[in-house]
Amino acid sequence: MSDSKRSDLDSLEVVAGNGLINRRALLGRGIALAGATTAGAGATFTSAGAEPLPVDPWSLTIGSTIPAYETPAKYEKHVVRTLTNPNHEPRTSQARTPHHLLNGTITPNGLHFVVSRTGFPDIDPAKHRLAIHGLVKQPKVFTLETLARYPMESRICFVECGGNSGPLYSKDPVQANVQAIHGLVSCSEWTGVRLSTLLEETGIDPKATWFLAEGADGPSMNRSIPIAKALDDAMIALFQNGERINPSQGYPMRLLVPGYEGNMNVKWLHRIKLIEAPVMAINETMQYTMRIEGQKSWQFYFPQEVKSFVTHPSPGHSLKGPGFYEISGLAYSGNGRISRVMVSADGGKSWAQAALQEPVLSKALTRFRMPWRWDGQPVVLQSRAWDEAGNTQPTRSQIAAERGEPRVNVPVTAFPMGHMNVITSWGIDSKGEVKHVYA
Amino acid sequence: MSDSKRSDLDSLEVVAGNGLINRRALLGRGIALAGATTAGAGATFTSAGAEPLPVDPWSLTIGSTIPAYETPAKYEKHVVRTLTNPNHEPRTSQARTPHHLLNGTITPNGLHFVVSRTGFPDIDPAKHRLAIHGLVKQPKVFTLETLARYPMESRICFVECGGNSGPLYSKDPVQANVQAIHGLVSCSEWTGVRLSTLLEETGIDPKATWFLAEGADGPSMNRSIPIAKALDDAMIALFQNGERINPSQGYPMRLLVPGYEGNMNVKWLHRIKLIEAPVMAINETMQYTMRIEGQKSWQFYFPQEVKSFVTHPSPGHSLKGPGFYEISGLAYSGNGRISRVMVSADGGKSWAQAALQEPVLSKALTRFRMPWRWDGQPVVLQSRAWDEAGNTQPTRSQIAAERGEPRVNVPVTAFPMGHMNVITSWGIDSKGEVKHVYA
Repeated sequence: MSDSKRSDLDSLEVVAGNGLINRRALLGRGIALAGATTAGAGATFTSAGAEPLPVDPWSLTIGSTIPAYETPAKYEKHVVRTLTNPNHEPRTSQARTPHHLLNGTITPNGLHFVVSRTGFPDIDPAKHRLAIHGLVKQPKVFTLETLARYPMESRICFVECGGNSGPLYSKDPVQANVQAIHGLVSCSEWTGVRLSTLLEETGIDPKATWFLAEGADGPSMNRSIPIAKALDDAMIALFQNGERINPSQGYPMRLLVPGYEGNMNVKWLHRIKLIEAPVMAINETMQYTMRIEGQKSWQFYFPQEVKSFVTHPSPGHSLKGPGFYEISGLAYSGNGRISRVMVSADGGKSWAQAALQEPVLSKALTRFRMPWRWDGQPVVLQSRAWDEAGNTQPTRSQIAAERGEPRVNVPVTAFPMGHMNVITSWGIDSKGEVKHVYA
Repeated sequence: MSDSKRSDLDSLEVVAGNGLINRRALLGRGIALAGATTAGAGATFTSAGAEPLPVDPWSLTIGSTIPAYETPAKYEKHVVRTLTNPNHEPRTSQARTPHHLLNGTITPNGLHFVVSRTGFPDIDPAKHRLAIHGLVKQPKVFTLETLARYPMESRICFVECGGNSGPLYSKDPVQANVQAIHGLVSCSEWTGVRLSTLLEETGIDPKATWFLAEGADGPSMNRSIPIAKALDDAMIALFQNGERINPSQGYPMRLLVPGYEGNMNVKWLHRIKLIEAPVMAINETMQYTMRIEGQKSWQFYFPQEVKSFVTHPSPGHSLKGPGFYEISGLAYSGNGRISRVMVSADGGKSWAQAALQEPVLSKALTRFRMPWRWDGQPVVLQSRAWDEAGNTQPTRSQIAAERGEPRVNVPVTAFPMGHMNVITSWGIDSKGEVKHVYA
């Protein structure tokens, strides 16, 4: 690195330990990165008239036929969901989103996470029906065709499994990547009919305080949900990122309860029954009930708490020498908009505020970005998010005080407990290798 | 329809001819649609204790394996792009987005429109390079790996072919659907590095007033673009809706010039050369130059004008009897945000303001929605959009005065001229069939 470039590099305002740079120095004020990026970034060349590029073989031939429905390039075959049950044994399947290989905030439909008890059913959309009955004034049955006539809405919204980030309950940090640790959250633009619109059609018996949502899959997956959510923002979702929702997302329709636990967003939805009390389904008694210290548990605890994690860099990435990098990641809250994300490069000793990618939407994944100059020494990266309701992510000692010290090591596929939103730490060694650590 | 339901229906405030309903009556004020939807919508049943649903065969079996990368349900095989050159003959290919079968604002990657001269090249991303040279202080060559270190941004943005909507130049209304007429526009969340960030690395010679963007495909597709766009919002796009951009969208990278003609968003980008004057490429001399009345033409005319069209209902759909329907469609402008969309059900005699789906983003597709009660008589649906710069769509007579009366009938695959943003009209007959008309 030349002295003049070192000087440019040093002129960037460092705002927290181990090289976090004032985000305003880069965003909108046009300060050059020259020098900051010298190590490893764009190669220079000097003979002004020379052709800077080789003639590549793909520039010498005609291309391939445009397909009617396109899938990613053959070089992207590694960008897939990891499957816990690829041979379809009689147990739950999880498919996790590869957040370390993606960027932006929308999850492509092919890579949305899945938790499924028996795989996806083969539902004929022309024969599928949605019944709304129970404590209503006039029960009704809807087809896809009749639902298409109602007022619709679109909203960009995350869905997260209540068990996501469960590996962080382990006594020692699991050696796994962000896909294994945090891959059970995804974000789409969902389009459909508000449940409240359909309840205006059926009317509501004043005795109804909950509703049961049930799927048409083999296990008839079901959940009890307070009627207040039905009258707020619950949606019968028909489209995902513009097209019909995918088979394992609930084709031809699912319930969307924005911000609530993933399992409550009942897939392959065929029944909404208004009721007086929860039905005590397996997903609200055995599963998705949080055991905490002192023989207590939390039941019917719906919203996914505020969370964030760094996706770039993260385990599996390696830094190619000192210099400038962008730290970026995802933040979200089931309680509304993200108000702030702080990033640390020294394991929590000092923090700097990250830029949030606009538009920052309620109950949607929000991309945060932080400029960083790595000096080649070991560092520990962390992120911590706040939501507009004033919640923030706990530290490991805060979680331990509430839920007990972790006593065992758990495999990444286990869900020892749910609703884990502790701060995540990535350690980077002097070779630039990234691994999961506790800090 | 019972008398009591007729009464509910009539209580909705009609705000324009042929049954357009005050959107505020439905949005947020909770007025029941009961009655308005009786004809054809949710079927009622009365025996309170009866099971409203059959036991479907898919509820009696286990499902299928969750795949690593998922594609739409087998029942959605008709939801594809239409191809003008499926046998890959040596001519341009167009693939059009089926907007009549989609909803929301995001176009799924599999269905983004394509215009391509020789199909998509097979580019090895590890060997691909982007050179920035010409009138710069320090030319540089970037790999995908070095670009990944720079600050990125994400933005939801439409891309539209300059020839989209060309069939509206025809003397008589072409009998085709919205996919054939308006299918060369799509919208994605694009993520990448701002071109201005890379130009801070190379520096800019003050003599540079334009830049040349060139692709690595066989024809070396290229365009000259004013340097001001490079310093504004131009992006080197690397990701589309979260994942790497698809082969026919320019894998592994494309130029994104938000709001500008589609062909300027150069795909398979491998060269940015800063220059003193446009190079007069074929796409700026023979193609994408607008001939208008009186032997004049418009050249270097970049932004896509404000436009809108109704997607639901549109040709190919048929209405199942009188009653409530939602009219919805898409609006956008290369000049910024959509400020207003008006809808008419009587061929332009009276208009009502549609609801715009939030968030309304600059240079992005915006979904508009309008509640409507069809009385079963023939109607003509239209939409007209305004953007925040004050532009609106022309009528057919305004377009004819500027560009000449249409004299010939053109096939839907021809691009007789570009930049067509006239108001589109759909006629609905008393049987509920929808067809393209001029009104």
